[in-house]
Amino acid sequence: MKKIFLTTCFVLATTLFSMAQDIVKLPEPDKNVSMTLYQALQQRKSVREYSGKEIDDMKLSQLLWAAVGINRPDGHLTAPTAINAQDITVYVCRKDGAWLYVAKDNALKKVSSKDLRKAVAANQSFAADAPLCLVIVSDNEKFHGGSTNGPTISGAIDAGYVSQNIDLACEALGLATVPRASMEKETLKKELNLTDSQNPILNHPIGYKK
Amino acid sequence: MKKIFLTTCFVLATTLFSMAQDIVKLPEPDKNVSMTLYQALQQRKSVREYSGKEIDDMKLSQLLWAAVGINRPDGHLTAPTAINAQDITVYVCRKDGAWLYVAKDNALKKVSSKDLRKAVAANQSFAADAPLCLVIVSDNEKFHGGSTNGPTISGAIDAGYVSQNIDLACEALGLATVPRASMEKETLKKELNLTDSQNPILNHPIGYKK
Repeated sequence: MKKIFLTTCFVLATTLFSMAQDIVKLPEPDKNVSMTLYQALQQRKSVREYSGKEIDDMKLSQLLWAAVGINRPDGHLTAPTAINAQDITVYVCRKDGAWLYVAKDNALKKVSSKDLRKAVAANQSFAADAPLCLVIVSDNEKFHGGSTNGPTISGAIDAGYVSQNIDLACEALGLATVPRASMEKETLKKELNLTDSQNPILNHPIGYKK
Repeated sequence: MKKIFLTTCFVLATTLFSMAQDIVKLPEPDKNVSMTLYQALQQRKSVREYSGKEIDDMKLSQLLWAAVGINRPDGHLTAPTAINAQDITVYVCRKDGAWLYVAKDNALKKVSSKDLRKAVAANQSFAADAPLCLVIVSDNEKFHGGSTNGPTISGAIDAGYVSQNIDLACEALGLATVPRASMEKETLKKELNLTDSQNPILNHPIGYKK
């Protein structure tokens, strides 16, 4: 009896520990970032070389909130979406695996233990050397009559909004990036556990300037 | 002989005057706008009611530069475009006609004497009451193998970048807007003198908050 109890406790503890590892709460994003919008627009440019310096959780939290965070109590976002479909999700690909950004919890949810940066980079290896890559995914299911036949015009527009938020936030946070449409989409759909109606539209390798 | 000379002078003067009216040089955009990027992201929202107050040329110059202005000596723009195709053009529709924004000259070039705001508004009359509407157009010709079969995914992404610049610039400039995909596209293609490969993707009614 004691043995069964101890085994149950062990299994429970292991499960809880593994669940805890799969969800990482990010620090509340510091929005007191001094760069003006017009400075960011003046500096906006695509950069394809990054230093190896890691991006800490606060910086990542600031970046993800800017990209597609909640900016109003009713759940509206920093980026508009067609018919407020909120079709966009953003994934973080790092050495330690791939993570879904859950805006409402300001948290990362692990979706893969693999380093998917090479699949994001495809034939442009510089992207695999970035400390992290963000992948912007649109879900056709969120639109009326959502299909499974590749990305929609509305989804592409919505990805553009989020991507420009990332471009500008990188400037304000001292980071560098380039928006890219090339990536191994089928590999990423499989490894990120995307549904048939979800399409990776754009990605952003991100790092500190070299 | 004197009569011919005077007639020639008159025709020349009239032509020059009419050409001058067709190109309006905008004031150099003031980029000392104090709102931070993160404040603009916090405030970003879609607004569908505007006061009748007109938007002056300085404000318009600031807005258009943010949207798709040149931010580097080599001609690169505030908004990225796929393969640096620079496929996007922005049109200003006002009571006094429709105007193409020519970024390299910081000028407006008249393309129609008609007030096209109703064609932009389509079935949502609030948009026709805005002091101005911007129309974001992508040209498939700028991409390899550009087709005439409606908008492309790359063009839609590029329109999204410009549209988010407009969203954020409106916040920083005390203006209000909403990005919209609905509009009378065929009417606008005709009246704006678009080519078969140019597609209106998004529009922005813009005004001061009511």
